[in-house]
Amino acid sequence: MTFSPETYRDRLDRLRSALGEADTEAMWVEPSVGLTYLTGLTPVSIERLFGLIVTPRDDLRLVVPELLADESKELPGEAEFFVWDDATGPERAAAAALEGIDRIAIQGSLPSWSWALLGSVRPSIEATIDDGVLGRLRELKDAQEVDALRRSGAVTDEIVEWIGSLDLGEMTEAQLAGRIQARYLELGFRPTPEGLIASGANSAMPHYIGGAERIGTDRLLLMDFGCAVDGYWSDITRIYFPRPLSGQVKECYEIVCAAHDAAFETAGPGVFCSDVDAAARKVITDAGYGDNFIHRTGHGLGMEVHEPPYLTGANDQPLEVGHVFSIEPGIYLPGRFGVRFEKIVHLGESGLESMNNSPREHFFA
Amino acid sequence: MTFSPETYRDRLDRLRSALGEADTEAMWVEPSVGLTYLTGLTPVSIERLFGLIVTPRDDLRLVVPELLADESKELPGEAEFFVWDDATGPERAAAAALEGIDRIAIQGSLPSWSWALLGSVRPSIEATIDDGVLGRLRELKDAQEVDALRRSGAVTDEIVEWIGSLDLGEMTEAQLAGRIQARYLELGFRPTPEGLIASGANSAMPHYIGGAERIGTDRLLLMDFGCAVDGYWSDITRIYFPRPLSGQVKECYEIVCAAHDAAFETAGPGVFCSDVDAAARKVITDAGYGDNFIHRTGHGLGMEVHEPPYLTGANDQPLEVGHVFSIEPGIYLPGRFGVRFEKIVHLGESGLESMNNSPREHFFA
Repeated sequence: MTFSPETYRDRLDRLRSALGEADTEAMWVEPSVGLTYLTGLTPVSIERLFGLIVTPRDDLRLVVPELLADESKELPGEAEFFVWDDATGPERAAAAALEGIDRIAIQGSLPSWSWALLGSVRPSIEATIDDGVLGRLRELKDAQEVDALRRSGAVTDEIVEWIGSLDLGEMTEAQLAGRIQARYLELGFRPTPEGLIASGANSAMPHYIGGAERIGTDRLLLMDFGCAVDGYWSDITRIYFPRPLSGQVKECYEIVCAAHDAAFETAGPGVFCSDVDAAARKVITDAGYGDNFIHRTGHGLGMEVHEPPYLTGANDQPLEVGHVFSIEPGIYLPGRFGVRFEKIVHLGESGLESMNNSPREHFFA
Repeated sequence: MTFSPETYRDRLDRLRSALGEADTEAMWVEPSVGLTYLTGLTPVSIERLFGLIVTPRDDLRLVVPELLADESKELPGEAEFFVWDDATGPERAAAAALEGIDRIAIQGSLPSWSWALLGSVRPSIEATIDDGVLGRLRELKDAQEVDALRRSGAVTDEIVEWIGSLDLGEMTEAQLAGRIQARYLELGFRPTPEGLIASGANSAMPHYIGGAERIGTDRLLLMDFGCAVDGYWSDITRIYFPRPLSGQVKECYEIVCAAHDAAFETAGPGVFCSDVDAAARKVITDAGYGDNFIHRTGHGLGMEVHEPPYLTGANDQPLEVGHVFSIEPGIYLPGRFGVRFEKIVHLGESGLESMNNSPREHFFA
């Protein structure tokens, strides 16, 4: 359990209020960041049905496989347990736990098999996706969450620096991805499972995963990674360049940095996400590379690496104090190279705070 | 891409035949082991809609976010691309791709939000979970899959041995979990994300995740972990004991090893999964610990750590040549200790093959 029992009791109370306000009878929370947010639990349940049922009243029900029952006891509140075992399956326990509930909210992350199972054991139930009621609580970060995100950003800045001490020309993209993950683990933090490590032309694919290609120190090396500190993620993109930074690579990188700065200047309380996206996009479009900026300007992050608010052209949600999100414009020239500059920012009472302070330019040794 | 293009073309062809036989119009495959099995692709799509639509005919459709379009080009067959971007969202592309399809099979792993989205962009479509049609192909392993699983088991045996060289009394459970993951990464393999490392009484919780507790070398240390080699997992449970193995711990460990052997002797082509479970359970029950064996005897594994066939009392599915599964009986005494012995086996033409050869007993140095 990362935080104090009071923190979890408070979060559960706020979910109960939100459910009441939304006139929602109950919510089913499967093993997910939502469950960890509410309880501190991180059960390894996988294909076994597990669900915390929260209602606006002061009661909890837990559908739990027998092998996880003991470690699930420390819930932040009185709970009725509906335990099932591998021989008989979860159906009877789930039906008993859902007794009397006609409408239940689920998270969009719930696997289809679980959603279908709720309906099959209680055919009269209406189970609908409502990420908002719990997602809304998770979206606005409190001081201890911001602190975890700040520490996460600082560790990741250190990793970018440390990468410069490696003999990068002697390894493949996938090897560097593994080295980064191992380094995080050594420091006691959980790395992102996929290392986006792209040498040369591979960087033109924004979500390219490092492969068997040897890193070329005569080409740029784009890296996008992060880690979880107390469950809260960092996420950074930095590039190691061959010296000197020149030609079209220099031109494009300066443009994405300027686009980043324009978005940073624009963001603030009450500003629409779409306006922040537009600010970055305008810089890149004006420079003639609009068609090469093939993704949104940023995404929220917290217990998930990607979560609301999303900084897209279509999102007219206003930014609020407590939001933590990435600003990461990019330019991608297929078959040649891609550049992106990504930083996490926190919108606090006194404005935007950078969660990453890693320099903008890094060069191969 | 782990295997040859021919391998993926062959897998797709077999899925097409299976869809035809099952009279299924089409299947939607999201980023998942199912997609990787069929195409070799491992897109980092997360909250962005991505789906490969396979039909019994020789055509493919791909709904793909713009930022993943380039890296998704190497499909094992001609495909029509339905590309969408962050500003406009996936709805129009998904609707166009589903045009003319009235019934579509999905995997149970599909997140509810994606399932709901298919129905919202094409209200007339009937999207139903059918894991069997693709799961069946993945369940029976071919020679190159068995080879990957064999190598995965061998690497994991080495890690168990290596753990004995560490100063275990100087670290916490979570630190050991991190060290194991880092060691796998150093060797070039992907570790299981959760390290189940349990010292002393924590071992009585079968899926306990290592925490801040210092490892006690005067108590048993139960470890359950594995890695992926070419995408195929290993999974082992071994215990480091204080010397000598004595008292009730010794008694219970001998019982679970005998239960393992009884299951191993029972398993074979045509034998029901439930009979293998019963064989292990009988040994433990006869010894008076039936109530303390609180999970099934085993699970299949391959591209997922847990997958069919499941060795439960309720599963009357017969074992077949090509099945790879764990045998892992355990005894758990709450508040005191738990013991489990787990090995992966492959049912080949000439009988059961052990994928793990790590000794049964390990002792603290």
